[in-house]
Amino acid sequence: MVIPIQLENNENIRYDITIDKLPHLTFDTKVAIVTNPTVSQYHLDTLLAHIDAKALHVVTIPDGEEYKNLETVETILNELFSHKLDRKSLLIAFGGGVIGDMTGFTASLYQRGIGFIQIPTTLLAQVDASVGGKTGVNNAFGKNLVGAFYQPKAVYIDTEFLKTLPSREFAAGLAELIKMAVMFDREFFEFLETADLNDKVTLEKAIARSVELKAWVVNQDEKEAGIRAVLNYGHTFAHVIENETAYKTYLHGEAVAIGMVMANHLAHALGLMSEEEIKRVETLLRKHNLPVIYTVLDVDAFYDKFFLDKKSMNDKIKFILPNGIGQFEMRNDIEAAAVKKVLSGFAGAN
Amino acid sequence: MVIPIQLENNENIRYDITIDKLPHLTFDTKVAIVTNPTVSQYHLDTLLAHIDAKALHVVTIPDGEEYKNLETVETILNELFSHKLDRKSLLIAFGGGVIGDMTGFTASLYQRGIGFIQIPTTLLAQVDASVGGKTGVNNAFGKNLVGAFYQPKAVYIDTEFLKTLPSREFAAGLAELIKMAVMFDREFFEFLETADLNDKVTLEKAIARSVELKAWVVNQDEKEAGIRAVLNYGHTFAHVIENETAYKTYLHGEAVAIGMVMANHLAHALGLMSEEEIKRVETLLRKHNLPVIYTVLDVDAFYDKFFLDKKSMNDKIKFILPNGIGQFEMRNDIEAAAVKKVLSGFAGAN
Repeated sequence: MVIPIQLENNENIRYDITIDKLPHLTFDTKVAIVTNPTVSQYHLDTLLAHIDAKALHVVTIPDGEEYKNLETVETILNELFSHKLDRKSLLIAFGGGVIGDMTGFTASLYQRGIGFIQIPTTLLAQVDASVGGKTGVNNAFGKNLVGAFYQPKAVYIDTEFLKTLPSREFAAGLAELIKMAVMFDREFFEFLETADLNDKVTLEKAIARSVELKAWVVNQDEKEAGIRAVLNYGHTFAHVIENETAYKTYLHGEAVAIGMVMANHLAHALGLMSEEEIKRVETLLRKHNLPVIYTVLDVDAFYDKFFLDKKSMNDKIKFILPNGIGQFEMRNDIEAAAVKKVLSGFAGAN
Repeated sequence: MVIPIQLENNENIRYDITIDKLPHLTFDTKVAIVTNPTVSQYHLDTLLAHIDAKALHVVTIPDGEEYKNLETVETILNELFSHKLDRKSLLIAFGGGVIGDMTGFTASLYQRGIGFIQIPTTLLAQVDASVGGKTGVNNAFGKNLVGAFYQPKAVYIDTEFLKTLPSREFAAGLAELIKMAVMFDREFFEFLETADLNDKVTLEKAIARSVELKAWVVNQDEKEAGIRAVLNYGHTFAHVIENETAYKTYLHGEAVAIGMVMANHLAHALGLMSEEEIKRVETLLRKHNLPVIYTVLDVDAFYDKFFLDKKSMNDKIKFILPNGIGQFEMRNDIEAAAVKKVLSGFAGAN
């Protein structure tokens, strides 16, 4: 399957996302693959067997979110300069979201921008990080605070690479996929309720639909001036949960799963979602062993932490809520009391 | 005078360059001014008297090309985060080319891009660095190797700020202005031959024409895929001169002045320029105390250094040459022997 990306306000950006067996890739330029030791040990030989280039270098960076910073980007840049990559050279991001975000960011900076290709090896990166052109790094003040909007030349999604992915990480990727269904596509949600994602063709179909929906959003709103904010469904709550648990307890997708459940209860309180619909989303999350329960110890403290999120400006919090399954609503007029009441429902015996 | 910028291939980028007395600027957002101690001591009070903002911070970075690196950018970023600038905040670059390049680059990175305004205080920055959207920093491998194409929201050029500029730096800025005339506009060149640039109105007129010409080039070719390379007239030679003299002997504009003279002699050897035209350019450069003489000690070594320039790929060197005064020619078919013969003319008693 091939999903074309074409930003509506920038005719220069046009590329394809291919969901299929990785094809043989031939480049008439220098190429550098950026990867980490974990991905490398399982899959680098496979990738190398698929690439012909004028010169081919592999840049290996340490595995983990704690290395997603400007220092690592500078290390990659220096390695590229020492290999004398030029303006026509190409980077390949080969790994999960951290590799993708940092490789894209490095490509945007090298001599003010060279091309890069995404070959994501985690489900989260396949459905989420590889689409949309958000690149960047973390710093002492928070996650993804420094970066660039920079689109790849191509994205190749091959589910073969997921075979070595731990099942917990696979499920965390599914959370983002379920998010797309709840926000935009009731039929897709119903497909997911019965789908056997162990089946390769079914999984490819699910990934393709999720990518297609995200592409539709990004094409309209590359720089998150409007509808792209809908992709933050569940994330406003998730960021607080991740902050309260020091990013140690939950994978990002797991925190998003809980965050979606919280958002659903808020939607219910506002009359946007039925009890039955809340249940159906929970059931789908549980089916994939995603967490749906979290104990809010201090409701006021939890609420105050919404304002740490860079997406909140002034004193309004923008909540992205389902309006039933398959439709969304953006609200920035919800009283603190209403939100805190919903949070109280998570303060103990839920 | 107001010169509009409108990139032909990107409808989203549109802003004005205003050449006039600095107006009063009112912003409904947080603003951070980035400057250095030299500019600050002479002109910061003036600038502060012209700005109203929701909050106003001044970030002072050390003066000098040696601080134009990723570390300084990270320092600026951290200061902006500590002041809690948000996505609607604005940076003001207040200084010369180094301040402009680093402030623009920092703006491009902060939360993946916030707005910035250029208020250049050197002639070089007014005619060159403030137009075109090339931002970035140096690294161990060379100058401006890491960065982004990122356009400002507005540029304000006020020649009052040039009153404290050392005359040698003023002349270095004129070199880039003369470059524009030789490449694109014979009438402008003739105007410069008789102009008294100590006169404010005449100087503004000259700056405006130079900026207008550069804007015309950049509008067509933001990312230097084609005609923008013409702006490198004199620079291919200048980069070698700067390298041979370890960036210590000449200001960039001075090296460009010599580089233009060298390029002119090459143009003459190819029948593109008369002796009389070479003389006229030299006379104009000399009138402003710009150097036109350089001793090439080792012709082969000088020639080999062309290949250090990032703009040279494979084994072709692209020379930008005048075709008479006011027209240009791009050539990548010139035999090494022909270039070396011209360089030999600079090997001693010229």
